[in-house]
Amino acid sequence: MSLLQVVPLGGCGEIGKNCTAVVQGEEIIVVDCGLSFPHEEQYGVDIVIPDMSWLVENKKKVKALVLTHAHEDHVGAIPYFLQILPDVPIYATPFTEALVRSKLQEKARNIEPNIKRMSFGDVISIGEMSVEPIRITHSIPETAALAIRTSHGIILFTADYKFDFSPVDKKLTNIKRFAELGEEGVLLLLSDSTNVDRKGWSLSESVVGRALEEVFAAAPGRVMVTTFSSNIHRMQQVVNAAKKTGRKVAIAGRRMDSTVALCQSMKYLDMPPAVYVKIDEIGKYAPGEVVILVTGSQGEPMAALSQMSRQEHRFLKIEEGDTILYSARPIPGNEGAIYRTVNRLIHLGAHVILEHDSPIHASGHGHQEELKMMVNLTQPFYVAPVHGEPRHQKLFERMLWDMGHVRHRIFLLANGDILNIDENKAWKAGHVRAGEILIDQAGGQEVGDRVLRERFNMAHHGVVIVAVEVDQKSGTFVGKPTLSAKGFCGEAKDLDSARAAVMDSVKGLSPAEVQDQSTLEDALCEPVRRIIGKEARQKPEVIPIILRT
Amino acid sequence: MSLLQVVPLGGCGEIGKNCTAVVQGEEIIVVDCGLSFPHEEQYGVDIVIPDMSWLVENKKKVKALVLTHAHEDHVGAIPYFLQILPDVPIYATPFTEALVRSKLQEKARNIEPNIKRMSFGDVISIGEMSVEPIRITHSIPETAALAIRTSHGIILFTADYKFDFSPVDKKLTNIKRFAELGEEGVLLLLSDSTNVDRKGWSLSESVVGRALEEVFAAAPGRVMVTTFSSNIHRMQQVVNAAKKTGRKVAIAGRRMDSTVALCQSMKYLDMPPAVYVKIDEIGKYAPGEVVILVTGSQGEPMAALSQMSRQEHRFLKIEEGDTILYSARPIPGNEGAIYRTVNRLIHLGAHVILEHDSPIHASGHGHQEELKMMVNLTQPFYVAPVHGEPRHQKLFERMLWDMGHVRHRIFLLANGDILNIDENKAWKAGHVRAGEILIDQAGGQEVGDRVLRERFNMAHHGVVIVAVEVDQKSGTFVGKPTLSAKGFCGEAKDLDSARAAVMDSVKGLSPAEVQDQSTLEDALCEPVRRIIGKEARQKPEVIPIILRT
Repeated sequence: MSLLQVVPLGGCGEIGKNCTAVVQGEEIIVVDCGLSFPHEEQYGVDIVIPDMSWLVENKKKVKALVLTHAHEDHVGAIPYFLQILPDVPIYATPFTEALVRSKLQEKARNIEPNIKRMSFGDVISIGEMSVEPIRITHSIPETAALAIRTSHGIILFTADYKFDFSPVDKKLTNIKRFAELGEEGVLLLLSDSTNVDRKGWSLSESVVGRALEEVFAAAPGRVMVTTFSSNIHRMQQVVNAAKKTGRKVAIAGRRMDSTVALCQSMKYLDMPPAVYVKIDEIGKYAPGEVVILVTGSQGEPMAALSQMSRQEHRFLKIEEGDTILYSARPIPGNEGAIYRTVNRLIHLGAHVILEHDSPIHASGHGHQEELKMMVNLTQPFYVAPVHGEPRHQKLFERMLWDMGHVRHRIFLLANGDILNIDENKAWKAGHVRAGEILIDQAGGQEVGDRVLRERFNMAHHGVVIVAVEVDQKSGTFVGKPTLSAKGFCGEAKDLDSARAAVMDSVKGLSPAEVQDQSTLEDALCEPVRRIIGKEARQKPEVIPIILRT
Repeated sequence: MSLLQVVPLGGCGEIGKNCTAVVQGEEIIVVDCGLSFPHEEQYGVDIVIPDMSWLVENKKKVKALVLTHAHEDHVGAIPYFLQILPDVPIYATPFTEALVRSKLQEKARNIEPNIKRMSFGDVISIGEMSVEPIRITHSIPETAALAIRTSHGIILFTADYKFDFSPVDKKLTNIKRFAELGEEGVLLLLSDSTNVDRKGWSLSESVVGRALEEVFAAAPGRVMVTTFSSNIHRMQQVVNAAKKTGRKVAIAGRRMDSTVALCQSMKYLDMPPAVYVKIDEIGKYAPGEVVILVTGSQGEPMAALSQMSRQEHRFLKIEEGDTILYSARPIPGNEGAIYRTVNRLIHLGAHVILEHDSPIHASGHGHQEELKMMVNLTQPFYVAPVHGEPRHQKLFERMLWDMGHVRHRIFLLANGDILNIDENKAWKAGHVRAGEILIDQAGGQEVGDRVLRERFNMAHHGVVIVAVEVDQKSGTFVGKPTLSAKGFCGEAKDLDSARAAVMDSVKGLSPAEVQDQSTLEDALCEPVRRIIGKEARQKPEVIPIILRT
């Protein structure tokens, strides 16, 4: 019987850009294809996608891309996936399909994806394997755990989940089905591990609804709520709370606007016409009658709330008496930008309520006891915690130990690891190429390592340009070398002494050396680096410009 | 009677670079002179100090600098203060004096400060005013609240504080004295507000001791503890726990090493010779007998722990079985760097325990109930929350409202605000120059706004250099313009079409225009910006290089 392989290309050892391949013989099923966001030092990068070159090498084997849910970290890289694997069918629940299609509409009009509808209860045959989506609760509708039947047994992807027993859309997790699979026997459980460091149970989303209602009722003026654009349940609760407290709802933020429109049209969001108001008409209502859903919960510089905090928004101005709710949790690393925004908002007279001040946010990811419950239900033979950084995967392992799980049947996978499974055992068997591709969305270009290094260096030390003019025929200089700088915080005299050093260093060059590009570049740059390093203690990017005539 | 003024130059509307002036007639007393650290986008900046130009303008009036405690955000800018006000006497408690002197030794050998010893119980006359230091508990020894007697009444600086009833050094807050001052009448209370968003009471530092002991006893191998180098009490508890659990203590990190040496010599740290081991001799002991105090609790790239995580430390290597304790709270904005370090450490096999996992850290700043207790004890007529961002100051104001404090007697000050006080009232009366000076420590230069703007732009879009050679006499070009780029993620063809556009734009120039620098610079740069913006959608810093012969 052929070997079974599981190969994560993203989402293992990180939170973001989830993408995992299940390989059986000549067939590959890919689960999710998401993006992540750059960290503070990846300058000028907009999004990060998985390196999918291994999939390209195995083009012929790839039979399907199956999606668990419509969050960016699970579907955001699909436009890039389709550029390299345009014919691969994509399986998705109706809601996920709709969001992916609208995303493709705006990002890649030229691509016509082959998306196949997937409904809970279906069992979809894909080559020798089959996929069964199972309903599970998360912060976005129609999230599907995936039971993939292989010749060696069931591989169960939990997807991102929590056990919410009072979900906003009243659609409960199919616990029974997970128990049945456990009884039948789950070979490998790939489990969400994001909140393993949080004890107990997560808050039910419906608890947030009550908290929002209280704030809306008590707020003297306008209320603004910021959350993730994809958090439909949260937005539904904002609408409900607004209705109950006699407020109108408007939306500020392009991405949120389009999501809401789509969800309304598909009846995933119930927003009565009596409640909804176009943002440019919100001024007609008294402050006490207004709720505005705004983008910017993570301090994104161009989001509506951030623009307001800088008083740069086209028409929305923060006023004394405004109440602003951060109905979201800061993603680690964003705290600085978020608090700078919050302070500006408060400075403009707003009352700001943060996630930790009152229960106005509930995580979409289950806490420790929920993760245990899933393991308990599904009784997996092998377990691999995914959707977590190493610190989460490690804690998940310790949790499994506490549960008495056999140590050698736990696998902490990194992106690119190959997990082999045969009749008798499972083992890590080397790596495939995997990693991050940094994308500059404006130009659609990839930002390479060299470019990043140069940007980092220029950001911290600036640039010094040393230019000289050469008579190529005679191999002699025309005029003297000139130096100029940008983003450089040394003094003029530092540049002067560097210039003097350059003069010395080029003086001794033979015509042949002057005619040779790299020799002359070194003769120009080395003294600049040396002198600037010694006198200004700076390490600027030094750029030689040689004009040859 | 002359007007009384309080002018914060730092520490109001921020956490960091505390510096406040108390002005009475022709006399100024400055309280503290600290630094802060740059945020993520202040590229290449090492430290931030207050703009003290207003003090320079009032040079003659400045009678004294009085220090509350030895933390960097209260004393770190003294080297710069002494450069502009070298003769001003500095008042400090013995411990603070010692740390300041050692800091000056290393940063500014040339300066011989005039530091006057200040002891609890003293009342020091400074011109018409007097200063009384009062012992209060904080995370560093000999922290002094300051009661400044003026002709209008007592101005009370709480300094950074918590009410720790079981402090490590057994030196308790002089609560009685605060109560007496309250009875006598406090005109203005300037209170720490950093932890106003934390409910209840802070943990006593001694609780941390027990938690450390438990971890040390249970850890199978080496234990490494990272905390702030200045947190002497914490280090004392690490030593105590090591002693109790039969472990030796070594120190990795220059700054921590020197602080410990100083504190030992002054008997502020009790480290028996039997416990202390030089870091380069720690290898002689079994892992289970070792505790290492390491720098890097905030993810600082060059700190010992960060170097170990990157396997770049000279001789310390992370080993399977190491236990690493983060005995510090992340400063907002540092989370990204901290978690990246933690993940690398775990990847190398270490078991990492974070501050929120168990009580291995206690804040040095009192929580809400402690802040209320101080107000309660001192019964101030006017209150100004300091040592906080606007979000903290605002919450403090709401807390005072809940306590029934009269609204118009609360002042939320920003750096540079002038608070006037006379017999009948207090009011904000305009601003003095205040702000942040960004320092590049390597070169000691100030990093200006223009440099920062250029760095930001180069970091996000790179640079494109357009160079051309001109025969100045005839005002004609020699050869063709050349373009080169760094940190630019457009494609070669983008530069080619930009180059073509430059050719077009310079073609039409008259000799006079070619001879004119700014006209020619515009003619070179404008087309590059336009074409690169259109085709590569990038906004690189465009630098013209014109060689004239």
